Amino acid sequence: MNFAVIGAGNGGQCIAGYLSMLGYSVKQQDKNGELIKSLQEKGRIKLKGKVVGEASLDLVTTDVHQVIEDTDIIMVVTTADAHMEVAQEIAPFLQKNQIVILNPGHTGGALEFLHTIIQHGCLNIPVIAETQDLLFSCRAVSVGEVNVSGIKRVMDIASIPSEKASEVVDLFKDIFPQFRARPNVLYTSLNNLGAMVHPVPTLLNAGRIESQQSFDYYSEGITKGIANVMEQMDEERLSIGKALGVDLTSILQWQYEAYGIEADSIYEALTCNESYIGIKAPKTLDSRFLTEDVPCGLVPLVNIGRLLGIEMPVTQSFIETANSLLRKDYRKEGRNLEKLGIKNHLEELMHVIS
Amino acid sequence: MNFAVIGAGNGGQCIAGYLSMLGYSVKQQDKNGELIKSLQEKGRIKLKGKVVGEASLDLVTTDVHQVIEDTDIIMVVTTADAHMEVAQEIAPFLQKNQIVILNPGHTGGALEFLHTIIQHGCLNIPVIAETQDLLFSCRAVSVGEVNVSGIKRVMDIASIPSEKASEVVDLFKDIFPQFRARPNVLYTSLNNLGAMVHPVPTLLNAGRIESQQSFDYYSEGITKGIANVMEQMDEERLSIGKALGVDLTSILQWQYEAYGIEADSIYEALTCNESYIGIKAPKTLDSRFLTEDVPCGLVPLVNIGRLLGIEMPVTQSFIETANSLLRKDYRKEGRNLEKLGIKNHLEELMHVIS
Repeated sequence: MNFAVIGAGNGGQCIAGYLSMLGYSVKQQDKNGELIKSLQEKGRIKLKGKVVGEASLDLVTTDVHQVIEDTDIIMVVTTADAHMEVAQEIAPFLQKNQIVILNPGHTGGALEFLHTIIQHGCLNIPVIAETQDLLFSCRAVSVGEVNVSGIKRVMDIASIPSEKASEVVDLFKDIFPQFRARPNVLYTSLNNLGAMVHPVPTLLNAGRIESQQSFDYYSEGITKGIANVMEQMDEERLSIGKALGVDLTSILQWQYEAYGIEADSIYEALTCNESYIGIKAPKTLDSRFLTEDVPCGLVPLVNIGRLLGIEMPVTQSFIETANSLLRKDYRKEGRNLEKLGIKNHLEELMHVIS
Repeated sequence: MNFAVIGAGNGGQCIAGYLSMLGYSVKQQDKNGELIKSLQEKGRIKLKGKVVGEASLDLVTTDVHQVIEDTDIIMVVTTADAHMEVAQEIAPFLQKNQIVILNPGHTGGALEFLHTIIQHGCLNIPVIAETQDLLFSCRAVSVGEVNVSGIKRVMDIASIPSEKASEVVDLFKDIFPQFRARPNVLYTSLNNLGAMVHPVPTLLNAGRIESQQSFDYYSEGITKGIANVMEQMDEERLSIGKALGVDLTSILQWQYEAYGIEADSIYEALTCNESYIGIKAPKTLDSRFLTEDVPCGLVPLVNIGRLLGIEMPVTQSFIETANSLLRKDYRKEGRNLEKLGIKNHLEELMHVIS
């Protein structure tokens, strides 16, 4: 089994290094030429922290065609807003027996990926899987040197077609035993908790962020009122799960499951979670907390909600506020139904994810 | 000519004191019993700053019936969210030859007042006027002692029925020569600039405010991104004016007209305006900047927009955000079409304001 890792940021370097350390053949690609040059010069990737070791990769390149040719598994480890571009580029070269894994897919990643490769001339549709989050909490301290601060105990994964997820989990049993197959991509896509905890505090602290004040994102940035709003947005997301019969994790349950936090409120959970101590707020509004979580989180959520006739006024208003602050049109640019390849019917969505 | 002044806050004490100093008979009412007791004990109102003098009032009471009986002019100087309650209380006692002036009306003040008194048994409909803002910038340094820091050079006033505005201006020519008659209450109601400059920075600094950080509301609280959002909200308001053929003042024009600020952008105007130096942000989200400006500013605006088929996504999203932060339903509680006495047709609105 050999791998392509697309994306050489923190997560991409970490996954490429890890797979390589386990003895697999790994080819890594990134479109950032300077980064690739530095990685080539370095020659190896070193992991430290919760995973220790180092290994060299088979190929490090900007050429996406080269890395996916004759590759079994294609790990996409870019920000979610780059998934569509990756899909467009690799569409003509994909093979039916390959597996693409979006790490993570955010909301609607696999759906968007599938629709995009079909639109861009892919005749041999591979399995497309998406994880619910990134398995490793990690940060590259320098190019080729990654500090792994955490490894999640369980990582949900689902695929299109849905029945392939258990095969993927089986394939990975010695690599990522944390993978847990879920019935379909709604289970991963609708459990995008980043979209619940990033845009609201970022926007309701926009003044502070744009003034470049330094403050702890969770313990200082989240007030009781802000936590209230997050809870209301989370309720809108959970109502989609209820309508679809998909069991979703609330922010509060997730805090318990992922961090062992037993709290009565989102405010208490997020501001008292010791794992969050020292995590600073973004220094600019042009941050992934908005540029990724709004178009690839909130936008597909309200679009799926619309298919179900569920009004999501809180989620809608934060899309609008991000649009007006950043002068963007995320409803158009983001993962709307058109980008997900769904016209206007719930039946279509249920058919595609099946 | 004699006066009732309803409301004994900063503005109410100031107006009552001023009218009394000019030699008019003035009766003042407030529902706050303690405040009224203190004012009674004090016996006089003293003005300092841009207006210097002192005078005693004819009556200071909590009984609204007493102050409006046989009174020519009823000045309502409460927060806008109290207008409806005042209207309900005085409805049965009003006389056709009286003039009610809302100082100021915010958005839809006169409309809401008219509808409310009709609904509460008023058979003798008085003239109902609204000013575009409070004439005096003032603050009570202690009960009965008001510092007047500014007097606006021009103050727009309009009335229902519309043709009475010039008579009101004429009546006041020796008292408030700043009054300028406008064709109808749309000119005053749609020029509620507080609603343009208060909710957006307050909500986009919600984290800071709820954490009780002290910062200058204008120079520190308004960033370029926040000013962008204010501009977009202002454009939505101005589009209502365009559709109705009502010439409105933009935030930028207002900064020039009221303060002589010549700036290229709202950001520049609001952060460089020396009159704003030292104005601190509210210490709590339970502030007039939200509790008055959302229900009596943004809510009637989007409702009038709806009559015209004008979408106001930015304004809508800030109503929603205020709702979720404060756990309110301002669309229902605020000045919606029902509260303004308008069903669903623009023609109705145009008829009522004529």
